[in-house]
Amino acid sequence: MSADQATMFAAIDRVAELAHAAAPMWRRSSSDVRAALLNGLAAALEANAAALVDLGDSETGLGAARLNGELARTAFQLRGFASEVKAGVPYRTVDDPAVAGAPPAGRPHLTRVLVPLGPVAMFSASNFPFAFSVLGGDTASALAAGCPVIVKAHSGHGALSRKVFEIAAKVVEQQNLPAGILTFVENTSREANAYLVQHRSVGAVAFTGSYQGGVALWRAANNRPRPVPFYGELGSINPLVVLPEALSNGEIEPAQTLAASIALGCGQFCTSPGIICVFDDDAGDRFVAELAKALGKQTPHRMLTEGIRRAYEDGVERLADHASTKSLVAQPSNGSGPSPRLFEAHADAFTGNTSLHEEVFGPAAVVVRVRSIEQVIDVLEAVEGSLTVTLWGAGADTPGNRALAYAAEQAGGRVLFGGVPTGVAVTHAQHHGGPWPASTSPQTTSVGYAAIERFLRPVAMQDAPAWVIAVRDGSVQS
Amino acid sequence: MSADQATMFAAIDRVAELAHAAAPMWRRSSSDVRAALLNGLAAALEANAAALVDLGDSETGLGAARLNGELARTAFQLRGFASEVKAGVPYRTVDDPAVAGAPPAGRPHLTRVLVPLGPVAMFSASNFPFAFSVLGGDTASALAAGCPVIVKAHSGHGALSRKVFEIAAKVVEQQNLPAGILTFVENTSREANAYLVQHRSVGAVAFTGSYQGGVALWRAANNRPRPVPFYGELGSINPLVVLPEALSNGEIEPAQTLAASIALGCGQFCTSPGIICVFDDDAGDRFVAELAKALGKQTPHRMLTEGIRRAYEDGVERLADHASTKSLVAQPSNGSGPSPRLFEAHADAFTGNTSLHEEVFGPAAVVVRVRSIEQVIDVLEAVEGSLTVTLWGAGADTPGNRALAYAAEQAGGRVLFGGVPTGVAVTHAQHHGGPWPASTSPQTTSVGYAAIERFLRPVAMQDAPAWVIAVRDGSVQS
Repeated sequence: MSADQATMFAAIDRVAELAHAAAPMWRRSSSDVRAALLNGLAAALEANAAALVDLGDSETGLGAARLNGELARTAFQLRGFASEVKAGVPYRTVDDPAVAGAPPAGRPHLTRVLVPLGPVAMFSASNFPFAFSVLGGDTASALAAGCPVIVKAHSGHGALSRKVFEIAAKVVEQQNLPAGILTFVENTSREANAYLVQHRSVGAVAFTGSYQGGVALWRAANNRPRPVPFYGELGSINPLVVLPEALSNGEIEPAQTLAASIALGCGQFCTSPGIICVFDDDAGDRFVAELAKALGKQTPHRMLTEGIRRAYEDGVERLADHASTKSLVAQPSNGSGPSPRLFEAHADAFTGNTSLHEEVFGPAAVVVRVRSIEQVIDVLEAVEGSLTVTLWGAGADTPGNRALAYAAEQAGGRVLFGGVPTGVAVTHAQHHGGPWPASTSPQTTSVGYAAIERFLRPVAMQDAPAWVIAVRDGSVQS
Repeated sequence: MSADQATMFAAIDRVAELAHAAAPMWRRSSSDVRAALLNGLAAALEANAAALVDLGDSETGLGAARLNGELARTAFQLRGFASEVKAGVPYRTVDDPAVAGAPPAGRPHLTRVLVPLGPVAMFSASNFPFAFSVLGGDTASALAAGCPVIVKAHSGHGALSRKVFEIAAKVVEQQNLPAGILTFVENTSREANAYLVQHRSVGAVAFTGSYQGGVALWRAANNRPRPVPFYGELGSINPLVVLPEALSNGEIEPAQTLAASIALGCGQFCTSPGIICVFDDDAGDRFVAELAKALGKQTPHRMLTEGIRRAYEDGVERLADHASTKSLVAQPSNGSGPSPRLFEAHADAFTGNTSLHEEVFGPAAVVVRVRSIEQVIDVLEAVEGSLTVTLWGAGADTPGNRALAYAAEQAGGRVLFGGVPTGVAVTHAQHHGGPWPASTSPQTTSVGYAAIERFLRPVAMQDAPAWVIAVRDGSVQS
């Protein structure tokens, strides 16, 4: 092991020990204490908004408007999870009184409680420097569940991450809570990341990022002597289907809406539409032409990191070189951002060519020309699981639309019947997940209030004395 | 590939295709249709009880009383899941109306629905020829969720499994349902089992069995191009703690109760107590002596298979040969069953010796002598995750008992404050799972009505037309 590696491992041991030490107190904390921390973190973010957005913009180039919106969302969801805690969600019990007599009807008294999984290793994403980072949804939901959080910062916004962490650590201190509730590591190697995932004190892992990096850590979690739950969001191609009905009022407006979504944030969204199914007819031709025109006019800002830019250029080159694709938009880049790209392929060629199905992270998409709803369904079945599937023009209750809606729910975690998939509301009904590789754990969500469930494990208490249940919500001094 | 292997793979392809073809109909089935099948299966089991119990006893040696009870439990839980379906559990939605305005407060209309995972490969257990087999809890909960089930029979009761399947298939046919809803494979090799787990048509796997076999299939599921959820129950040591308070009324009765639990069903229960923590004092000495006496008098019936018997003999030999253990019960076997065994070790020696922590499936247990509650906690932290932890004499609200209850909920999926862990009630509050290796998916349960959640995945429908939600519960013709 190199000296650097040893230093990193020692830093991880240190924060893991702090988190481990804080875990018993935090799991027993009352709803008032937990909600006060979450609300305090939201207020501290807002109080420092101007400086944080400046710093974040200088590191990521995402722009003040976007970063202000993202900071507001991050504060909103911290407060949202505080409300969940106050409503008693992580303390919820299911109680079955004893029934006299022989089994199967006779039974003991059982109370099902929820137990926090312990310290959560949280791997920040590159593309949301607030909402999927130090104080993002994974941190908020894990803290709400009663789990300490070990933040692994993303190097794409390292200074911002450190600053947000310092602000957060001050709130923890001001509220007289142990520092181990929220800890921080940065500039870790791949080996150190795996070391963190395999640390004995870590009870669960949350990850948002690349397929390759995510799979490596998922395997590390599964190779522990005692594997722990791993929640990874690894990639998504987000098919969007333009049915002929969607173009009955013209092609220009829908094409402009879609082009803006493809280029939004320089395409650096997990929910960025990457495959556009368009019918092979005159209206479809006009739509594709308008889409190409509108996308060609987009001037995306620079990408988050040099590595992401290189991966984007490699990805579009792969698509451009493919025998089955035609390039529709390919201008030289105008300035710091990459050139948006649009490709076209016929469904017959697309469906069997898995190399065309891979996510290209950035402002690029593939138009797949189809002749029937059956061909759309073939495309949805061929591609891997996605966070979203969008159906434009599927409003009417027809057999074709029923079949399409069915195929869409098989392929994704969220099905939109209008609008664009970029933008994910923080609500109870939200589901941000989906079949592999959209999520390594497709029954869970990383956005919305159900995210809290990822960090809790049921335990059935059998014939427990009353105090065992009473001490659990922190309302009784323990 | 051998000819045998090719035949097995072809048989698996056949049932997987049938299940795949039946999946769309079954996921859209109404609560009436689904509940009628579950209730029909329960009634058919009961109508054939005498013949099935005879056949099962001849194969397993578990005895008519036990098998009649198990059949009754199996019918009870089929009917229980029918009630869950009628109550609408698998059709449940969460609806968040649209809110006007900009995000984060503004949002589209979102309806979270539950989508069945598709065909479930269900690996039957050796030790519950009814309740964890063809029509057991995994099958009942998967069918209730809307998933077809591919049963992989256990060779320990192959004839019974085939007979139960034939009875069930007749019910499926009589109710005019496609045969693919419930299919059956038997006498499969390890390679064929992995082939089934990796089959493209399989959407989830349920497994109850050995650590080695379970881990192999779990890895196979994770090595699919697109991994799917795997629910495995792989083993459990089930610590039972005898606090001094539990012996204040004498040692004989508790010792007899415990000895009967250790030897129940020849110790072939996932919840059989394998580690008994007893204080190192006079009452503890008397209890251990009574336990040894009572266990020595037990005459367990024969084990389920020759392989299980060999593994038991190997396991007890390993314990007997260990330098840190003392053998307390070791009579020659009297007849067809194995000899019950009891060993003793001191906590200091036990905690650090992981070879003493391994489950020995059968009527054996290790008494661990402790000097303090802290040492009990050390033992609970040292052993792997368990389905159950039992605390005798922890009724009073003391700091020691709080610490013990906390350690117990960390180590297990069910914590008992009295009684013995063998016997698992089918209720809403039940949790039959626990940290690895008790479960590969510790947030889920394989017994009780929450088991249905394993086979459903949330999908958020955004701005969906009303028919999209309405057709989902089968009440609208689709």
